[in-house]
Amino acid sequence: MDLIFGVCPVRPQLPAVGVRVGVGEVHLVGSAMKDLSPGDLVIPSPLSSGTWQTYIVKDQSVWQKMDKNSPIEYAATISINPPTALRMLEDFASLEPRDSIVQNGARSMVGRCLIQIAKSHGIHSINIIRDRVGSDEAKEALKKLGAKEVFTESQLEIKNVKSLLGDLKDPALGLNRTSGNAASLVMKFFRLDKSMVTYGGMSKKPITVSTSYFIFKDLSLRGFWLHNWMSSNDVTGCKRMIDHLLELVPDGKLKYEYTELVSFSDFHIALDKSLGKLGSHPKQVLKF
Amino acid sequence: MDLIFGVCPVRPQLPAVGVRVGVGEVHLVGSAMKDLSPGDLVIPSPLSSGTWQTYIVKDQSVWQKMDKNSPIEYAATISINPPTALRMLEDFASLEPRDSIVQNGARSMVGRCLIQIAKSHGIHSINIIRDRVGSDEAKEALKKLGAKEVFTESQLEIKNVKSLLGDLKDPALGLNRTSGNAASLVMKFFRLDKSMVTYGGMSKKPITVSTSYFIFKDLSLRGFWLHNWMSSNDVTGCKRMIDHLLELVPDGKLKYEYTELVSFSDFHIALDKSLGKLGSHPKQVLKF
Repeated sequence: MDLIFGVCPVRPQLPAVGVRVGVGEVHLVGSAMKDLSPGDLVIPSPLSSGTWQTYIVKDQSVWQKMDKNSPIEYAATISINPPTALRMLEDFASLEPRDSIVQNGARSMVGRCLIQIAKSHGIHSINIIRDRVGSDEAKEALKKLGAKEVFTESQLEIKNVKSLLGDLKDPALGLNRTSGNAASLVMKFFRLDKSMVTYGGMSKKPITVSTSYFIFKDLSLRGFWLHNWMSSNDVTGCKRMIDHLLELVPDGKLKYEYTELVSFSDFHIALDKSLGKLGSHPKQVLKF
Repeated sequence: MDLIFGVCPVRPQLPAVGVRVGVGEVHLVGSAMKDLSPGDLVIPSPLSSGTWQTYIVKDQSVWQKMDKNSPIEYAATISINPPTALRMLEDFASLEPRDSIVQNGARSMVGRCLIQIAKSHGIHSINIIRDRVGSDEAKEALKKLGAKEVFTESQLEIKNVKSLLGDLKDPALGLNRTSGNAASLVMKFFRLDKSMVTYGGMSKKPITVSTSYFIFKDLSLRGFWLHNWMSSNDVTGCKRMIDHLLELVPDGKLKYEYTELVSFSDFHIALDKSLGKLGSHPKQVLKF
């Protein structure tokens, strides 16, 4: 959606067909095609724009065949938020079971994926949410998903936040979706030699850091954007990651909640509207 | 001096003897000593506190024998600022000849070491200094040392700072001594996938960064503190680095200027005053 709103620095040439996710059914294949047959279900992998149309014609290499047992609503949305969570967990720190991570924006889709994927790796998540009506219910919901601790921002306005952690290890990695003060709250948990990875700026405020964090605590601030990761990684690696994430679903290790299914359903309806024009490559036609 | 002012988070047990640099002359050695003889000149390496006394008794392993041809004023001050500059240049980016770096606080001791060591590696330095009386003379002085470009902060308050660089490559690394707005000026030169290393906060202001730098430009912010580096690196590596730096001096590739020699001379006088008490290890006695 960032692409449509124009907040994403990648600007497709116009006119363009939007949306990068979805599940397609193979409709027709060229005579040279061996790996896919009509009726197979596929997702675009690695991500590429243009699923918001009824028919797509593209080379077989950009499609990943789906196991027909994967729930279609998960397959259709597996390619952005869950990989963002997985990559941030795996690529910025060497996490072991019983290590901790700390994140803000924990109610977001990526936030909830992080909680669940961390838990499936035996990693404890410390979660920060905004002070809002319903935050007690939100805490319960996140704990049900596997969150180890959930705090509202105001609960962390104390000097020694680590006193809230009991026996939990100091977090080894921080994830920042919110920026502004909520980023400072993540860093408040750090002792020595830690990284905070920024993947969103929902507060629309910058990140402000005291110099001493860098010099004396050896803090490292990094960023993550799936688009960049996909551009610099091989297609096989992307496909293997998607398979791994889809395997978490039948075991209940990765699940969405009611509210997301509603928005997924809205989105699915949108997918049925043809806003683009047909491509011209004869090798493969997908029906969405 | 940070130790004496109490701004350094390392707190020695009191009473303590200050200062970590200096050149000592070996006065007496134990009978088992083979590597050092009376009359040899040594520096404490790796850095350890307590050179501000007339006699020191410590194990031979903490002393590095000096080539007698090394100018004593350089040897006595080689252990903090030049290694800080060298490590930041070598440990945070893979720099090749003709690459560029950008730094603020360029008039500082580390800043001038950076200019010279970068030049000795064939690397171009882009330097930022404060707007002060005498900044034209400062620009000239830094260019004489090897600076490729020198700008005052106010010169960089334009939209496209890269238009000032002519044929120079976009800087591959930023070094931040000042923080506050001067850190933002360093980052203004960055395109994709760059690191800024903070080693000082002279403005006493924090570093403020827009979220988009992390996500879309893949900015990485790190910190450097020589104390941490020394603690996590082997003694042989430290000694080799000091030798390498001292070798730059006779060729004129690393030099201090008049103002530093004045402060060195003050410091040298201070070294002659015994403020501590003698240690008790009989293996080696140094006279400062």
